[in-house]
Amino acid sequence: MTDPLFENVYKQALPFWKDLSEDDRDFICRHSVARSCPAGAHLHDGSECSGVFFIRSGSLRVYMMSEAGKDITLYRLYPGDICMLSASCVIQAITFDVFIDAEEDSEYFVIGAPAFAALSEREPKVRIFALETTVSRFSDVMWVMQQILFMSMDKRLAIFLADECARTGSDTLRMTHGQIARYMGSAREVVSRMLKYFSNEGIVEASRKGVRILDKKRLRDLTL
Amino acid sequence: MTDPLFENVYKQALPFWKDLSEDDRDFICRHSVARSCPAGAHLHDGSECSGVFFIRSGSLRVYMMSEAGKDITLYRLYPGDICMLSASCVIQAITFDVFIDAEEDSEYFVIGAPAFAALSEREPKVRIFALETTVSRFSDVMWVMQQILFMSMDKRLAIFLADECARTGSDTLRMTHGQIARYMGSAREVVSRMLKYFSNEGIVEASRKGVRILDKKRLRDLTL
Repeated sequence: MTDPLFENVYKQALPFWKDLSEDDRDFICRHSVARSCPAGAHLHDGSECSGVFFIRSGSLRVYMMSEAGKDITLYRLYPGDICMLSASCVIQAITFDVFIDAEEDSEYFVIGAPAFAALSEREPKVRIFALETTVSRFSDVMWVMQQILFMSMDKRLAIFLADECARTGSDTLRMTHGQIARYMGSAREVVSRMLKYFSNEGIVEASRKGVRILDKKRLRDLTL
Repeated sequence: MTDPLFENVYKQALPFWKDLSEDDRDFICRHSVARSCPAGAHLHDGSECSGVFFIRSGSLRVYMMSEAGKDITLYRLYPGDICMLSASCVIQAITFDVFIDAEEDSEYFVIGAPAFAALSEREPKVRIFALETTVSRFSDVMWVMQQILFMSMDKRLAIFLADECARTGSDTLRMTHGQIARYMGSAREVVSRMLKYFSNEGIVEASRKGVRILDKKRLRDLTL
């Protein structure tokens, strides 16, 4: 019998679920495991094929890394999101590696890569879903690239602060300058300098513990 | 009757062609046009949905552009290549725009976007092909991003080539890619790929026997 823990979640979240045979549903549930991890845990290191991640709670950060250990955030995964790049062996056309860490204490399901690959081989709808999920991440990455390559630092930082405040529903970001820099793919000094500039302008109040937004309107103007 | 001009090419190049009905083949051929353009022509400007490009001769450059007009090459298309990003309306998950220019005098076929979209809607194999083509471009873009962000390898290789030429007083390095990689403490594949990139940019001419510097100024710029 299909495990109701996975079944109940997948039937809501996976658009192809209703088109699968009873056997295939059972197959996927049998090859699923529920995991949890503390904030900061490394979940995927690029070279392995860890399986398809299905995020249940918390958040994961997907990033690329240079040989020198410098990293840049590509996108984040939140509850309900599915990660195909952790199972790049499922999709031949993916020839690059990413890294995935937990940003918060997180819970997630993992569907084993060979099981998912086998199903996507025989079910075009599953394969299309996997590919479309990947292509929409391509869109995210192109956006990041645009930010990094073309936008001035003040605009990038303003967008980051505005997005984080919108996401958390708070005016205060409890992050160090170093953390902000890592998220933005920048250097701590650059972020500190720009935050000092924003402070001087009365847009934010920056301390070692975090950043508080004082003037939302001007911050928003900077993002345009 | 299906137009033999397109039919003969598509049946070689499109893996799904043999699985299409006679009617669908005819449908695609009827919605195809043959075009040619001189070097430098702008073929696609990002916001439109120009159709699926199928390159017959010459080469096209796909790039992104900032508001300020700064551009960066994502990849190039050569005879036999297919471009889905010029038909981004066919794939909903693509939410970014690219630009495409001809680098040389080029000939290409264009399959109309609505016709291709209709076919990919009813034929999963076509949709899978379109998505896989797109995902493999994602891989190319990630590679470019890696180079640009971490800026180590192109600079290191440029410095190595410039130093060697200065040392020997010649524009030509008689070294294999493997030898260069060993001197640089890198991998042969990485050096080969970067030399191919330098070649495409017209900076060097790389063959199995060695490397010839074509554009000293650009090579020197890369070392800075």
